[in-house]
Amino acid sequence: MSFSSKLKIRFGDIDRAGIVYYPRFLHYFHVALEEFFESALGVEYPTVINHHRVGLPSVHLETDFMQPLCYGDKIEVEVSVLNLGNASIKFGYRVFRKGEDVPRVTGHNITVCVDMDTFEKRDIPEFLRDSLKKYLRPGKSQ
Amino acid sequence: MSFSSKLKIRFGDIDRAGIVYYPRFLHYFHVALEEFFESALGVEYPTVINHHRVGLPSVHLETDFMQPLCYGDKIEVEVSVLNLGNASIKFGYRVFRKGEDVPRVTGHNITVCVDMDTFEKRDIPEFLRDSLKKYLRPGKSQ
Amino acid sequence: MSFSSKLKIRFGDIDRAGIVYYPRFLHYFHVALEEFFESALGVEYPTVINHHRVGLPSVHLETDFMQPLCYGDKIEVEVSVLNLGNASIKFGYRVFRKGEDVPRVTGHNITVCVDMDTFEKRDIPEFLRDSLKKYLRPGKSQ
Amino acid sequence: MSFSSKLKIRFGDIDRAGIVYYPRFLHYFHVALEEFFESALGVEYPTVINHHRVGLPSVHLETDFMQPLCYGDKIEVEVSVLNLGNASIKFGYRVFRKGEDVPRVTGHNITVCVDMDTFEKRDIPEFLRDSLKKYLRPGKSQ
Repeated sequence: MSFSSKLKIRFGDIDRAGIVYYPRFLHYFHVALEEFFESALGVEYPTVINHHRVGLPSVHLETDFMQPLCYGDKIEVEVSVLNLGNASIKFGYRVFRKGEDVPRVTGHNITVCVDMDTFEKRDIPEFLRDSLKKYLRPGKSQ
Repeated sequence: MSFSSKLKIRFGDIDRAGIVYYPRFLHYFHVALEEFFESALGVEYPTVINHHRVGLPSVHLETDFMQPLCYGDKIEVEVSVLNLGNASIKFGYRVFRKGEDVPRVTGHNITVCVDMDTFEKRDIPEFLRDSLKKYLRPGKSQ
Repeated sequence: MSFSSKLKIRFGDIDRAGIVYYPRFLHYFHVALEEFFESALGVEYPTVINHHRVGLPSVHLETDFMQPLCYGDKIEVEVSVLNLGNASIKFGYRVFRKGEDVPRVTGHNITVCVDMDTFEKRDIPEFLRDSLKKYLRPGKSQ
Repeated sequence: MSFSSKLKIRFGDIDRAGIVYYPRFLHYFHVALEEFFESALGVEYPTVINHHRVGLPSVHLETDFMQPLCYGDKIEVEVSVLNLGNASIKFGYRVFRKGEDVPRVTGHNITVCVDMDTFEKRDIPEFLRDSLKKYLRPGKSQ
């Protein structure tokens, strides 16, 4: 199974060079991840944090920027699960400009599951693991 | 007494029109306010929040944008205290491009003093009131 | 006629006090305005800028923050036209938390129509004026 | 030679988990890079873009987040040149919390030199290459 979130490049996302300010892509990744939880996993990320007291801080990030994006571009950010450890999740992201087959930006980050009250590492809760598994792309790396 | 914070317009602060994205000025106001606490009032804003458990959420904001600012511009953000109530503070801001006498952006906001644990309104603590008074510009409005 | 844009409070929109960082609301206003152009006026804001070479920089802004918003809140940002001058437009904004009747944040800004190539003031183009008129709320101020 | 830029974690840099929103670190990297140009290389990045018409978009980015940072933390962002190609530069970044010897965040990005008017790849101009060389850390990778 795969999931994509539709986003738009906004007026304030642009930098002095007239293209998307590159840190902004990491924000797009996060927004798409929030949508992935709500629409694909069936639990809102705010609920995971506020109610289940589980957080997923990033410990590693890699991104490739192949082609720039500009104001007015509409994008789809594909989210997938590249690896599931006991306490860590590797999420993959691919950013497509609407109507294009080749992604303009790709990336992945590794997040570690923590207890929101102590910020200590903990195992991924079962309800999350079960739903994350459906989006696991075995053998794929990014 | 008056206080100014020197800031620089950053690469990512620019919008599609090639000028500072206007919500960004409110961020400059906040950064200048944080500097005002640290350098002028002698207490860091993080200390006010974390230790004294006092917050200052904005309840009203007005801003005039007279001239745009561009990437590479260096600015001074002047902070002053326009009014001191029992529980509210009216801060004034004027943004000057380096070397200019006429501000390019002016504004003020009204913040209400709250207990950080309950988010209920409370009086301004005395230690803050005493130092804020020195920057009060009586009879001035903005 | 009225228009609302549905937005979500994002993970990174929150400040140290655990509520939406107030400059972020001005970004919400702008995003809602971009949606207003695309969905209500029938012309995308990027097209207005890139093709028609017309920009709408803000010259004045007022905002009232009545109640805070938190991570996980879903909001509707209502956009209306409060006044239409020859070269200026006054847009009104009201931010409702989903399911609530009383806005948590309200505001308006005055934008001036400029030629994107010279940044000089110009009259609002007729095609924009005609569609903006439909969202004019006569006698209303905010 | 080495260069560090002193920055402060700001009120609005914090996310719902109470730590720096991770995309924000990439903004810190960029701000430190802008300071590196001005203070270390002796040419302002706005001048490189506006006058020399040279841009440095990122094509690749890697970051490790070892320890979180919180509101009130003061940081030093060290910038170095890890590799100098004909048209590409690999910049390294290490973020230290004030007074600490072990970085909390490290990263690098590869930027490609482009002509700002055509966005086509071009060689690094000599005046930049000469000054960048002084900050080259041979044999170092990050």
